[in-house]
Amino acid sequence: MVDQHTLDLQFMAAALAEAQQGFDEGGIPIGSVIVVDGQIIGRGHNRRVQQGNPILHGEMDAFQNAGRQRAAVYRRATLYSTLSPCSMCAGTSLLYQIPRIVIGENHTVAETTLCEDWLLRARGVEVVVLDQPECYALMQKFIQLHPEVWNEDIGY
Amino acid sequence: MVDQHTLDLQFMAAALAEAQQGFDEGGIPIGSVIVVDGQIIGRGHNRRVQQGNPILHGEMDAFQNAGRQRAAVYRRATLYSTLSPCSMCAGTSLLYQIPRIVIGENHTVAETTLCEDWLLRARGVEVVVLDQPECYALMQKFIQLHPEVWNEDIGY
Repeated sequence: MVDQHTLDLQFMAAALAEAQQGFDEGGIPIGSVIVVDGQIIGRGHNRRVQQGNPILHGEMDAFQNAGRQRAAVYRRATLYSTLSPCSMCAGTSLLYQIPRIVIGENHTVAETTLCEDWLLRARGVEVVVLDQPECYALMQKFIQLHPEVWNEDIGY
Repeated sequence: MVDQHTLDLQFMAAALAEAQQGFDEGGIPIGSVIVVDGQIIGRGHNRRVQQGNPILHGEMDAFQNAGRQRAAVYRRATLYSTLSPCSMCAGTSLLYQIPRIVIGENHTVAETTLCEDWLLRARGVEVVVLDQPECYALMQKFIQLHPEVWNEDIGY
């Protein structure tokens, strides 16, 4: 049987592929997948630039693409994201009682925005940070190319 | 000069019109507007049913319809919602540092989901509850007609 860490690396690779697709489209390279019973039920990437849509963070795009799900499904899901979720995406996970979140990296998130502890762990969510250099490198590449896009709406 | 409460009632009426439109479409009747400098910059209503989209709560639809905005715009906005926001919508308001939220009613929200205090006021957001019977009545009408839709994803 494959151990949980190996599975986490596989699903994070799928989230990173989404992030890379976003980068290739000229968008903010953050990707996400939602996994239930070992299967990806939704995947997505940040599409603020591509669709002019401020709510389509990577995680939100994955929730949107998963479509309508029953409460019982959400409650056994794991959310993977290449970047530590903001309060919108973390709040969505709390709404749907997602019990486990796996994060690619959290260095790119400003301290004022980081909500792993006060919002997620404080409400009983299991948060795993893989700290993957490739997730961080892709974000830094984008921010150096397009600082005005990165700083546009939340003013990092 | 029109006082703030009169303005709040006017903008809540616009949010309620959105909720009514949602009801007329067969959707969950929750509406929202975002106001900046006395003008509505985004309006929307819950479209989970209409679009099969779990992230389109009324508030999220209003953010989406407002399109990309600069941080400075969000930081002087007021968000109006006919129903007290869930953690997704409250988390989005925190992300964009919306300083003020006006709520139509909060009786329909389960105690476990209500986040006015622990999520919004705790982070310095001004929260005003108008407690309007018409907002409550529209929700109750929907829930009696379609309890299975209301209970589908978060299992109230």
